[in-house]
Amino acid sequence: MAAGDRASTLPLLGAAKAGVHVPSKRIKQLPMLFALVGVIVAPILLFVDFQSVRLSPQAAPIEQAALTSVTTSSYAVNADGTRDLLKECEEKYFTQTLDHFGAGAPTYEQRYFICNKHGRKDGVIFFYVGNEADVELYLNNTGLMWENAEEFGATLVFAEHRYFGKSVPFGKKVTKHMQYLSTEQALADYAVLITHIKDTYKLDVPVVGFGGSYGGMLGSWFRMKYPHIIDGVIAGSAPILAFLGDEKPVDMESFARVTTFDASPEAGSAANCIPNIRRVWSTMTKLGKTKEGRKDLFSAFSLCESEKLEKEKDVAALIDWAKSAIDYMAMGNYPYPSPYIMNGQSVLPAYPVRVACEHMKDEYAPEDDLGLLRAFRDSIGVYYNSTLDQECFKTSAPSEESANDDNFWQYLFCSELYMPVSIDGVNDMFWSVPWNQTADNESCIEQWGVSLRPTWAMTQYGGRKALYAASNIVLSNGNYDPWSGTGVLENISDSVVAVAIDGGAHHLDLFFKNELDPPSVVAAREIELAHARKWIRQYYEHRASVAA
Amino acid sequence: MAAGDRASTLPLLGAAKAGVHVPSKRIKQLPMLFALVGVIVAPILLFVDFQSVRLSPQAAPIEQAALTSVTTSSYAVNADGTRDLLKECEEKYFTQTLDHFGAGAPTYEQRYFICNKHGRKDGVIFFYVGNEADVELYLNNTGLMWENAEEFGATLVFAEHRYFGKSVPFGKKVTKHMQYLSTEQALADYAVLITHIKDTYKLDVPVVGFGGSYGGMLGSWFRMKYPHIIDGVIAGSAPILAFLGDEKPVDMESFARVTTFDASPEAGSAANCIPNIRRVWSTMTKLGKTKEGRKDLFSAFSLCESEKLEKEKDVAALIDWAKSAIDYMAMGNYPYPSPYIMNGQSVLPAYPVRVACEHMKDEYAPEDDLGLLRAFRDSIGVYYNSTLDQECFKTSAPSEESANDDNFWQYLFCSELYMPVSIDGVNDMFWSVPWNQTADNESCIEQWGVSLRPTWAMTQYGGRKALYAASNIVLSNGNYDPWSGTGVLENISDSVVAVAIDGGAHHLDLFFKNELDPPSVVAAREIELAHARKWIRQYYEHRASVAA
Repeated sequence: MAAGDRASTLPLLGAAKAGVHVPSKRIKQLPMLFALVGVIVAPILLFVDFQSVRLSPQAAPIEQAALTSVTTSSYAVNADGTRDLLKECEEKYFTQTLDHFGAGAPTYEQRYFICNKHGRKDGVIFFYVGNEADVELYLNNTGLMWENAEEFGATLVFAEHRYFGKSVPFGKKVTKHMQYLSTEQALADYAVLITHIKDTYKLDVPVVGFGGSYGGMLGSWFRMKYPHIIDGVIAGSAPILAFLGDEKPVDMESFARVTTFDASPEAGSAANCIPNIRRVWSTMTKLGKTKEGRKDLFSAFSLCESEKLEKEKDVAALIDWAKSAIDYMAMGNYPYPSPYIMNGQSVLPAYPVRVACEHMKDEYAPEDDLGLLRAFRDSIGVYYNSTLDQECFKTSAPSEESANDDNFWQYLFCSELYMPVSIDGVNDMFWSVPWNQTADNESCIEQWGVSLRPTWAMTQYGGRKALYAASNIVLSNGNYDPWSGTGVLENISDSVVAVAIDGGAHHLDLFFKNELDPPSVVAAREIELAHARKWIRQYYEHRASVAA
Repeated sequence: MAAGDRASTLPLLGAAKAGVHVPSKRIKQLPMLFALVGVIVAPILLFVDFQSVRLSPQAAPIEQAALTSVTTSSYAVNADGTRDLLKECEEKYFTQTLDHFGAGAPTYEQRYFICNKHGRKDGVIFFYVGNEADVELYLNNTGLMWENAEEFGATLVFAEHRYFGKSVPFGKKVTKHMQYLSTEQALADYAVLITHIKDTYKLDVPVVGFGGSYGGMLGSWFRMKYPHIIDGVIAGSAPILAFLGDEKPVDMESFARVTTFDASPEAGSAANCIPNIRRVWSTMTKLGKTKEGRKDLFSAFSLCESEKLEKEKDVAALIDWAKSAIDYMAMGNYPYPSPYIMNGQSVLPAYPVRVACEHMKDEYAPEDDLGLLRAFRDSIGVYYNSTLDQECFKTSAPSEESANDDNFWQYLFCSELYMPVSIDGVNDMFWSVPWNQTADNESCIEQWGVSLRPTWAMTQYGGRKALYAASNIVLSNGNYDPWSGTGVLENISDSVVAVAIDGGAHHLDLFFKNELDPPSVVAAREIELAHARKWIRQYYEHRASVAA
């Protein structure tokens, strides 16, 4: 397969170069910026700029009305499917040292939200362990916290991760001071913040943590390192076993494999989708070799700027750009229309991979390459034209500045959290990309001036081995979520448990209830809350025993 | 009581000013430098310099021959009671980053010793978690590791704590770069080092940690934070409950109380010792008020330099200097002659507090203040004249430079590990010294330019609360050890257990066996080794289950 030959020479994952494929440059943080690292294989960065283009709607139109009608939550939904719950909270800033593990560092202002409508003195703190975005995103989407606040008497706290959102030190000079961005410092921030909040609000209550994705990893590690601060953690879709050096090898190929599963009939997608997508890559590579072929690609993909596809190497970037849409749709393969993956800028339809695959359901004759590619254009348009107002796809490289703002997750990836990725090309619908740590390291040095620490995450956090010694963590994973392959899928012990969500995508369980939720996620939330109740009971029983 | 009035105005503990009372300036690290912090109440620092003075022997003469004859260990003892086991080991250096939690810091060379005579591939690593001294001290004294190496097939590793011994970064400029001295960085050093050693020596074996005093705290925290690296820890005399903010208040007065216990008939000391020592302080204070009285003090204490006792305030320093001898003898109140507390420079007799109290066994008429003081001089001479060659006590302040070298423990105390201390004056033989955090903080700012972080240790390590979530730690404490009052004295759980050593002083159990060991310490070691065997079995059973 031609694409295979070519792709194998591409730098794998290119943490330092991978960009963020978003419908608007205005978005500063992407929920799954995270997702990009480890799956992008682009040597050249392309951004889509939709600002002045209009493409015929290709995705199945989304009824905005449906967004509210399917929601059972008492927290109002905007017409565009987003929520605005900031008004339920106080926005606060707390002065933190930038170096908890050494004296003399400067301070910064960490932002957090505290939402106290239902909080009781004999209740609990629900604490969102902020990850790599503006914390408002998590505040507005973590329905599991909101919808159970009243029953639990929960004070909600949403803590922002240092260097993200409005918790960025050093202002515009932040990239000159990256040494204070680390997971350990972030966890210590949370430990100090919780201590401060319990003290300030006179709350002698247990703390239950919530976190999704990288936030789920942080949450798990928080419980492992600070069990005296956090009584238990519900970790949604945390790829906590993605690090080198554990007692079992990392399943590096799982991201591509699960993405492929989402495009399979078993996951509700059209039967021809996978073979058609496989054929797309080789077709693109073949056409990319000639000028005529590149003209065909330009036309079939409804691109705006022919100058962006003048050379053969430009095609590799186009392929990665296309693949990225599939990756994101797989992560956002939720059972109802959701703006989450689009950070509220637009809405993906219910089961977007199915919708994308619906465009690929036909068979194409061997000579009908362009029919295939046009159908594929419509598939990825489900993601790239989710705003339904694009006439053509305009691609452009991001400015250096915006890349810095957006890519702090990549700094963490380089400096601490190396999660190697490869693509099999056999058990997935992509092409073979071997693990290439050398190239990954070079990218990190080039972009951030830091070398990979390939085994540091294992030394510091311990993967499976440390989970055996831990307690009070629920790790949930949906089998539609490409990150699930490096999550915890089997119980570790009685109190470090795995929850499987059949038909669930990226931390679906953390969201607000929805009538279209599969039974699996309803059950998952019940299990999670049962554990939370147990942790809370343990806290109060222990407190009583100490007082006695 | 006059001394009480005065002492209550002294800055408590004076971490920043407290010095090291050692028989020779040449000693760069003191085993229990640690001890000084938290118990010294001196506003002015006095050092004893024995270099050119000779005092009539006051302590009971120590038969050097007895030192070897009472030893049952197969590891040879020098004539002076020390051991030299370095020849059994390889001395190595390992390059570590100074900042594990942020990229871009310089590196330093961490020293460790690896002693592989009995190591087996199906055995274990015994790992000494280095604390605040040259690691050679621990290497030569931790008999529990040496004497069980063969049975366990143990590779011995003694790791030096950063900033101590020969593991000091930045050479002579070290005090300009104190921000890298922290417990978290030290623990990360150990985690990285063990990973390196297991990899380099191809040792897929469990790791059992050993640590005494601050090393016992570090060891406990190491297991709590890095259970995937260290399978269990034997922590001797770790005052791990000495930090503010735990679920029970810190027993701040326990150090003075246990020291007093050591001087009681219940602990084998002469009946008049405690009342006599109580009277000493008020007598010294009373005499200190007049010039005549200070002359009497000079004479009664056999001081060398009258100019050091010209003013009333000099007497406070003399009192603290005297008290310090008692504190050290209590920590070193071992059942056989031992050079440990003297760092091998001289030998304390068996049960030195009893020996010291033997000088105070008589009753002194109310008018016989000087008789009392002369007897007290002989008491503290057990410590300060342990070399038996002093004619008078010469006191001098340490140079600024040597204070820096010796007092890095105090930096840790100031920057992270604030352990508040007070003296009751009622349940002990001293005088009332209330807890004074403000003064402690001022001392830290003055000496190190850092403010106390009074609750940081609790936030980071969690005290009792975190121990409930931990596993595989044995915490031993002897009731002769003044530090025992802030140790763990009751089982926390099935696998975090307390071991009481009746008649034991500071981590006696970690030392080599001795015919004079009380049965309690023989039993304690058996318990500790039984736990170690369990941890080792767990490791191999788990490994087999993973492989299956």
